[in-house]
Amino acid sequence: MSKVLIFGHQNPDTDAITSAISFSYLQNELGHNTEAVAFGKPTEETQYALDYFETKAPRTVTSVSSETDQVMLVDHNEAQQSAPDIDKVKVLAVVDHHRIANFATADPLYYRAEPVGCTQTIIWKMFKENDIDVPKNIAGLMLSAIISDTLLLQSPTSTTEDEKAAHALADIAEVDLNSYGKDLLKAGTNTKNKTASQILNDDAKNFPMGESTVRIGQVNVVDVDEVLARKMELLREMQDQSQASNYDLFMLVITNVLENDSVALVYGDKTELVKQAFNKDIVEDTVLLEGVVSRKKQVVPPLTKQFEQE
Amino acid sequence: MSKVLIFGHQNPDTDAITSAISFSYLQNELGHNTEAVAFGKPTEETQYALDYFETKAPRTVTSVSSETDQVMLVDHNEAQQSAPDIDKVKVLAVVDHHRIANFATADPLYYRAEPVGCTQTIIWKMFKENDIDVPKNIAGLMLSAIISDTLLLQSPTSTTEDEKAAHALADIAEVDLNSYGKDLLKAGTNTKNKTASQILNDDAKNFPMGESTVRIGQVNVVDVDEVLARKMELLREMQDQSQASNYDLFMLVITNVLENDSVALVYGDKTELVKQAFNKDIVEDTVLLEGVVSRKKQVVPPLTKQFEQE
Repeated sequence: MSKVLIFGHQNPDTDAITSAISFSYLQNELGHNTEAVAFGKPTEETQYALDYFETKAPRTVTSVSSETDQVMLVDHNEAQQSAPDIDKVKVLAVVDHHRIANFATADPLYYRAEPVGCTQTIIWKMFKENDIDVPKNIAGLMLSAIISDTLLLQSPTSTTEDEKAAHALADIAEVDLNSYGKDLLKAGTNTKNKTASQILNDDAKNFPMGESTVRIGQVNVVDVDEVLARKMELLREMQDQSQASNYDLFMLVITNVLENDSVALVYGDKTELVKQAFNKDIVEDTVLLEGVVSRKKQVVPPLTKQFEQE
Repeated sequence: MSKVLIFGHQNPDTDAITSAISFSYLQNELGHNTEAVAFGKPTEETQYALDYFETKAPRTVTSVSSETDQVMLVDHNEAQQSAPDIDKVKVLAVVDHHRIANFATADPLYYRAEPVGCTQTIIWKMFKENDIDVPKNIAGLMLSAIISDTLLLQSPTSTTEDEKAAHALADIAEVDLNSYGKDLLKAGTNTKNKTASQILNDDAKNFPMGESTVRIGQVNVVDVDEVLARKMELLREMQDQSQASNYDLFMLVITNVLENDSVALVYGDKTELVKQAFNKDIVEDTVLLEGVVSRKKQVVPPLTKQFEQE
């Protein structure tokens, strides 16, 4: 039987990359033959964590069905965020913390989703349920994903379960949660060396909403103006990509990870729906989203509602 | 906040009814305010278990959105098997052991599916994970569902996890697994007092396959000929219901629970696909399915494959 490949979503963030690593370790300990792979290279933030905990990045792939017929998904379930050939393989398991959409199987499977801040919090529970020890380096990577997804436990997506997992994993990894956390978040906020396309797409996902396709990117910064200074360049790139891929709306959420606020840059025929969803005026292509840091919890649900009412 | 309603699929079987009861008990112990309800009356088998363990059947409902805006689903996820107004309420949690299809949410949720024989086996694990004791009567109902879904651990859907749960629950319920199990299964095999419509629909589900809608009923018997003696009556009823509801195929799987074989009675425009799916001839509207006892594992997957190739 071919090796089972385990992977997170395209444009992998720290949770997508490291959950593949930790879940593959867990599955192999349970007697399965799996390998973590990734649909993209690590971001600077993820690379910081991999370097700190001396772990190799998963092998990068662009498809899976040529080398296996069985896969496990972490940190995503929606087909358009997954392997381009996901319909040609059998999904044995999913561990995720997102809404369920555009996902269907012919057979029963293992599916574990919980409304927590990070996939690694669920995987941490599975380690405990199966009575398997987490190695120090993997604990550090799991912790890094929780810090990344919950902005050091400050995001509204963060739950008491994420807190419990983060503290336990910090102990195993032998790091100070707060000082390591701030260093990790800062490592992911460097936009100066990034192209406009990288800023837009490094952490972007497509969401079918009503009859429309909405692309939402998010970038973490310590200074929002550093990104907004490149607004015209970003809007031109958003226009090109929207035309090429038929997006009805392209939204870039620029999040200040120290102040926990965001500004969204918006492009497309449907920007009026952003105005309605957040009850905010669009001023020079931007919308101020006070207190908004979570795409999943604070951006996607109100936008989806607005598109479905349209 | 309104009470959270917990329910299994329409045409509830023993797992659907009793999983609502046990999961509601667990959720209430965890501090939530829930009530088990059901989309139909208990079958004779389920009533036998409820009587034996002196537990009231859940309240029967025909819709949910008039009394709550939040629900939890057990033993199903597909919209067409659920509350008719499922799109008007928020699904907080799902515990299930079937394929995932026709299911989507706007928000993250708790979803727990495992490829085991019975939903109660998963709920049993959740009791243990949360360190909550199962009361004797609820243990008896959980055991009854496992016996029912796995035909006393003989079905190919039965796993070592179902076995472990069944033995542990039999201890708590203070019954002998085998003798109670046979009595329970026999209680569900009385077809003499049933109308043709009851035989067809008491445990029937609709499955969208490719572009078609397939309805598959299953009835457990100790004598297949008792049901086949009423073939003309059953075929007339299948014809009426197929015309009324636009089924492309109606299949009744008649399963001998003592011998673990089935005979399927088939009606509709697409019976040719049954022949191809199982590589068996259709003789006088029936197909002999040797060793087949599981609709989910042995009937739906090959049929789905055939309809999708069409």
